Amino acid sequence: MTEAPLPPGRAIGILGGGQLGRMLAMAAARLGLITRVFDPDPSAPAAQVCAGHVCAPWDDAAALTRFAERVDVITYEFENVPLATLDILAPLRPIRPDARALATGQDRLAEKRLFAGLGLGTAPFAAVEDAGGLTAALAKIGTPAILKTRRLGYDGKGQARIAEPGDAPAALAALRGAPAILEGLVDFEREISVIAARGAEGAVVCFDPGENTHAEGILRRTVVPARLSPAQRTEAVLAAGRILTALDHVGVMGVEMFVTPSGLLVNEIAPRVHNSGHWTQAGCAVDQFEQHIRAVAGWPLGDGRRHADVEMENLIGDDIARVPEIAREADTTLHLYGKAEARPGRKMGHVNRIRRG
Amino acid sequence: MTEAPLPPGRAIGILGGGQLGRMLAMAAARLGLITRVFDPDPSAPAAQVCAGHVCAPWDDAAALTRFAERVDVITYEFENVPLATLDILAPLRPIRPDARALATGQDRLAEKRLFAGLGLGTAPFAAVEDAGGLTAALAKIGTPAILKTRRLGYDGKGQARIAEPGDAPAALAALRGAPAILEGLVDFEREISVIAARGAEGAVVCFDPGENTHAEGILRRTVVPARLSPAQRTEAVLAAGRILTALDHVGVMGVEMFVTPSGLLVNEIAPRVHNSGHWTQAGCAVDQFEQHIRAVAGWPLGDGRRHADVEMENLIGDDIARVPEIAREADTTLHLYGKAEARPGRKMGHVNRIRRG
Repeated sequence: MTEAPLPPGRAIGILGGGQLGRMLAMAAARLGLITRVFDPDPSAPAAQVCAGHVCAPWDDAAALTRFAERVDVITYEFENVPLATLDILAPLRPIRPDARALATGQDRLAEKRLFAGLGLGTAPFAAVEDAGGLTAALAKIGTPAILKTRRLGYDGKGQARIAEPGDAPAALAALRGAPAILEGLVDFEREISVIAARGAEGAVVCFDPGENTHAEGILRRTVVPARLSPAQRTEAVLAAGRILTALDHVGVMGVEMFVTPSGLLVNEIAPRVHNSGHWTQAGCAVDQFEQHIRAVAGWPLGDGRRHADVEMENLIGDDIARVPEIAREADTTLHLYGKAEARPGRKMGHVNRIRRG
Repeated sequence: MTEAPLPPGRAIGILGGGQLGRMLAMAAARLGLITRVFDPDPSAPAAQVCAGHVCAPWDDAAALTRFAERVDVITYEFENVPLATLDILAPLRPIRPDARALATGQDRLAEKRLFAGLGLGTAPFAAVEDAGGLTAALAKIGTPAILKTRRLGYDGKGQARIAEPGDAPAALAALRGAPAILEGLVDFEREISVIAARGAEGAVVCFDPGENTHAEGILRRTVVPARLSPAQRTEAVLAAGRILTALDHVGVMGVEMFVTPSGLLVNEIAPRVHNSGHWTQAGCAVDQFEQHIRAVAGWPLGDGRRHADVEMENLIGDDIARVPEIAREADTTLHLYGKAEARPGRKMGHVNRIRRG
């Protein structure tokens, strides 16, 4: 692509108006770009900080067309945008990242096959279509293992653990016949993620890997820098670069990896800005949100260098009650998402704490 | 004031929707607070990033009332809000900072009298009502001196230099009979500013003083830290603290000072977030915009500590053409204001450059 960068004053459409869309909108505003959001939720958090919110179902072709006509380029904040929605939008405006990255990010099996095809380490995996397939997969991979739906899984949903072969029928039933993937359990030392960006002209810039801690399948904390040897750090960054390049990805991608005694294993990708990249708001001159907007708008990418060590903590559900106390902490930046109701497991905000040496 | 802090989800009204209002709105969003802006300009930069824009003249009582009814507290982004506007709003909602800080910040003579009354150094000054007054003031202060309107001066407007007594009639004519103040020219080594915040309960927090460079009466550059001795730094911060306290100010205030061989002289105050405080976006966990929102919303103030050295450069008029090149710089954050037309002297954006040791 050699087209000119989108100049200030032009508009970016964002599919999805959750917290990621909200922070993308604010990053775009810093570059003088206007954002419009498409989201069926009338109380979408991004609606409060953008120039317009089209509130309609994902299959409303008229609303999607109206939305597309008012923007110059379209991106998305989550990988489960229906592909049928993209089919309506694609003839109208460029969509970045394009449908290929999205389709891969929507499908755990396609992801794993991509990683393996690039020669990158992964957990053992096998496709599962039915009970017979699950038996064969268990024979290959063994237990313990995790059965996951290929699509629409996030934050630990759509997963069932198989501790021993006798758990298989219940696990399969829990997934209600959805196409699935069986993954061998990995004995990892830590989980890291690389937030990588690829520009319209093919340049890749990676932020420093962060080290992630989950609880109940939800990210709780990312610490940067991750505890990695220089060789591991290089391996992680190169793996991310190869994945983005292979997908011809334009935008930010979160690449989750496991550090194991036998090397790095790539776990999954999210073809969008990622919760484990929120630390960049406090640690880098150009954060992951602006980096994504730059890529989507055809701007040069920011340099990605870290100028501060950061610990990011998610505020989930009732954690929101801790805001008054967090507001008194030194070297700490709060980010709240404008969500009215603090349901259990709901991401309400996050905190970036700058760590002094 | 001991009322409870404004919780996330509540609304702050901002009078004025320029770049300061825009950045206040984005800071409020980080705290989960909603903002609505009142500005007669339909293309007000803040309108693109807030929940609502009331576009009406400053004397439209019905529109002001409608605006006030939809917010919980009101603040402003510029000190020239008509006092008549505040008279309409004050019975409806709390206004922070209150009318006293605003009235003082609107009047160069009241400012100088305040500083002198607190025992702070100032340039020599005298009130000027007419030609006779100007003659008397010149006799007291001497030349060179600057004749300034008491009100509505900013960025070098409403000023006339008097190099020798013969310039006096032309200078007075240039001000068209407006009440004025004559100020002696100060032989200063550098200009600094302290961005200070005072919370609803009286706590004052100052950011590190920045060193400012102007061209044609417009701020071009702020470098932090300013070149000051520890004693000078302390004197500057204490002076700012005394001014905010004397005015019972709630919110951020910019305090401009001159460093001279005979000590610090306080030049002027702006009872609002200030261009010379934009560096805090890159150098502090809580920037001046969030600090102001915290004060106005009754939240605890952020700590104000600097975690990075920063150089802020304003992008004025045609400087906007340099954006593509600035976007390629390392350790640099761009902030563009969403203004369509780059008129000479118009502030189009700014750049924060993090300086590594």
